[in-house]
Amino acid sequence: MVCTDYFEESLKLHKKYGGKIAIESKVPLATKEDLSLAYTPGVAQPSREIAKNHALAFEYTMKKNSVAVVSDGSAVLGLGNVGAEAAIPVMEGKAILFKKLAGIDAFPICIKSQDPQEIVSIVKNIAPAFGGINLEDIAAPKCFEIEEKLQDIGIPVMHDDQHGTAIVVLAGLLNASRAVGKSFSEMKVVVSGSGAAGTAITKMLLCLDEGDNTKGVCTSVREVIMVDSKGIIHKGREDLNAPKAVLANHTNKRNVKGSLVEALNGADAFIGVSAPGIVTREMISGMNENAIVFAMANPTPEIMPDEAKAGGARIVATGRSDYPNQVNNALAFPGVFRGALDSKATRISIGMKLAAAYALATCISEPAEKRILPDVLDSGVATRIAGAVGKAALEEKLARK
Amino acid sequence: MVCTDYFEESLKLHKKYGGKIAIESKVPLATKEDLSLAYTPGVAQPSREIAKNHALAFEYTMKKNSVAVVSDGSAVLGLGNVGAEAAIPVMEGKAILFKKLAGIDAFPICIKSQDPQEIVSIVKNIAPAFGGINLEDIAAPKCFEIEEKLQDIGIPVMHDDQHGTAIVVLAGLLNASRAVGKSFSEMKVVVSGSGAAGTAITKMLLCLDEGDNTKGVCTSVREVIMVDSKGIIHKGREDLNAPKAVLANHTNKRNVKGSLVEALNGADAFIGVSAPGIVTREMISGMNENAIVFAMANPTPEIMPDEAKAGGARIVATGRSDYPNQVNNALAFPGVFRGALDSKATRISIGMKLAAAYALATCISEPAEKRILPDVLDSGVATRIAGAVGKAALEEKLARK
Repeated sequence: MVCTDYFEESLKLHKKYGGKIAIESKVPLATKEDLSLAYTPGVAQPSREIAKNHALAFEYTMKKNSVAVVSDGSAVLGLGNVGAEAAIPVMEGKAILFKKLAGIDAFPICIKSQDPQEIVSIVKNIAPAFGGINLEDIAAPKCFEIEEKLQDIGIPVMHDDQHGTAIVVLAGLLNASRAVGKSFSEMKVVVSGSGAAGTAITKMLLCLDEGDNTKGVCTSVREVIMVDSKGIIHKGREDLNAPKAVLANHTNKRNVKGSLVEALNGADAFIGVSAPGIVTREMISGMNENAIVFAMANPTPEIMPDEAKAGGARIVATGRSDYPNQVNNALAFPGVFRGALDSKATRISIGMKLAAAYALATCISEPAEKRILPDVLDSGVATRIAGAVGKAALEEKLARK
Repeated sequence: MVCTDYFEESLKLHKKYGGKIAIESKVPLATKEDLSLAYTPGVAQPSREIAKNHALAFEYTMKKNSVAVVSDGSAVLGLGNVGAEAAIPVMEGKAILFKKLAGIDAFPICIKSQDPQEIVSIVKNIAPAFGGINLEDIAAPKCFEIEEKLQDIGIPVMHDDQHGTAIVVLAGLLNASRAVGKSFSEMKVVVSGSGAAGTAITKMLLCLDEGDNTKGVCTSVREVIMVDSKGIIHKGREDLNAPKAVLANHTNKRNVKGSLVEALNGADAFIGVSAPGIVTREMISGMNENAIVFAMANPTPEIMPDEAKAGGARIVATGRSDYPNQVNNALAFPGVFRGALDSKATRISIGMKLAAAYALATCISEPAEKRILPDVLDSGVATRIAGAVGKAALEEKLARK
């Protein structure tokens, strides 16, 4: 099918089912006796115990296995700021993937307000019934502030558009470099797009979220040049917002100026999380030998795979399922949260994210041009990531008391 | 089993399952093709359509069949203000009853804040993904304010402790009066407890929520005397909060003063939503012939059924499943919300609540001393109520455009 076919078919599917998630009871409810245990009068007892010790909510309730998928609809897919209502089908899709791939009970929380302070306050207020918070499709730069302000609420919080994407890109780039025989730490990388995903990818590729737990673990590439819609990000630009100004200090060490053309000249890898069709065959020709191209704009990539190949790219990845090497967040978030929940982690550290990326990379034993990442539905991926994430959490002593 | 057995068994059940609700996918998710329709790229299409017309969320998403069960944990069961975490098992219990009895996908929203303004704001903000809001276990008097301020958000909102209880009590009292041959409109009723439930019951028995749609439909009893922990509510009392002061103007027309003893003297029915053991056999003896006693304090009633009978009560109902005539909100809320969702109602009017009560009463064709209400698990109850509620909504033209 071509993309437009998916659109019509998807509309039919959504109309037919009237939503994609359902709530089911895990406990028997056939007799009065069942009712007396699951509801009144019996239910008073777990309530009493939890009132005395809130941590018991992780044992006696849904909190043990639940994740809120929170969005304000300000940056949904490639559609932009379509609002909370239009975000619902996407968050439902996320929820069923959480269940299918990691057995997690995830539920959409679509928030009307688009004010960062208010979103933070709402998430804190509804957190009691959840074991984790997956922030989703929230626009940059407010997504950075929201995520940071939620780091100390005692349960893992992760903005998937940032870190889920960064984890999969890092894993894919590690395997791509192996497949073409480039040294990862010697690579010059261009990141196109400086929103949530581009920022997180850049930080991960440069080990910028440093801290004790990344020492000796995180390997950075040689250089990253970021490009936004105005061109290359460099220290001289006066139109940079605060997060971009910080990145300007850590990227583009040779202080290259200009557009994507200049950025790609002599680069080893292109990582696009930006806009359709902005890269040409000629730009790819200006890259180094064995160029690696991740053109992840959705649904239309920065450059179509055939064009990129014609320009000399050796490996091409996209966000799409109809080409080889699909870069899909669903390879990361289920396992990351499974590992965080199972290890009783109070947060998702950079060490846990790196562990997830390295574990994901190892799911492909022999990376090849058309096989740098596993398929989204490959079984065992989430389990492998969860194990690595949980191990990292335990080593960092992040488990709640 | 006695109550304490239920407590231990319930704790074991909650520990074994680690929560009672699970999220399941309604759509197939076995192939890449399935993924492309339920998630990207296909899901962009329902999102785009909903962005253009928010009402389509009722067709393409979970909003069609979802209800939030919202509590701040300020008045949980008979346990008092135990907080949001301790409320989770109760709200999960509610959610599985919604599914079992009415096929509704309900989800617990347990809110940390106990400030009415903030609760109103949070509920409005998370409303996009929900088709209805069931407020639960929120203390009086703030529950009145919260419910009122949420009446115009475009989806049905009902505080179940108020109206669910009132609906079942009205249905039970109608059938009890038939069973003992009392005229409903001639009854003198004592309501013990002036919280959420007592207030709503009193208003329903006196047709106080008047409006065009109750004219000629609502039948009131002859008199209600309300009693709180300080004694009979009468106009002379200076310790009444605003909602109680309003009720003082509509109840106790003979301006009786004193305690429960004085209130029950010559009464036809006692409706207790108050505290364990506060009614004695002697007080029941002071009531009229064929006395009706609803002793619904949980888990220990205001008076035990045997004692009430010994005092001369002809019909005794409690909140418990181990005695005849269980008054349980679960007889009402599933059908009320099913009817509201099916009729696309934008609110739950007093006319719809009365329709629910009358429909519930008709579930018992020949009321008898030990059978004034159906069992909670009786099939067909919710369907019958839903039909009546939906009909009332359509007659009142409450369907969204």
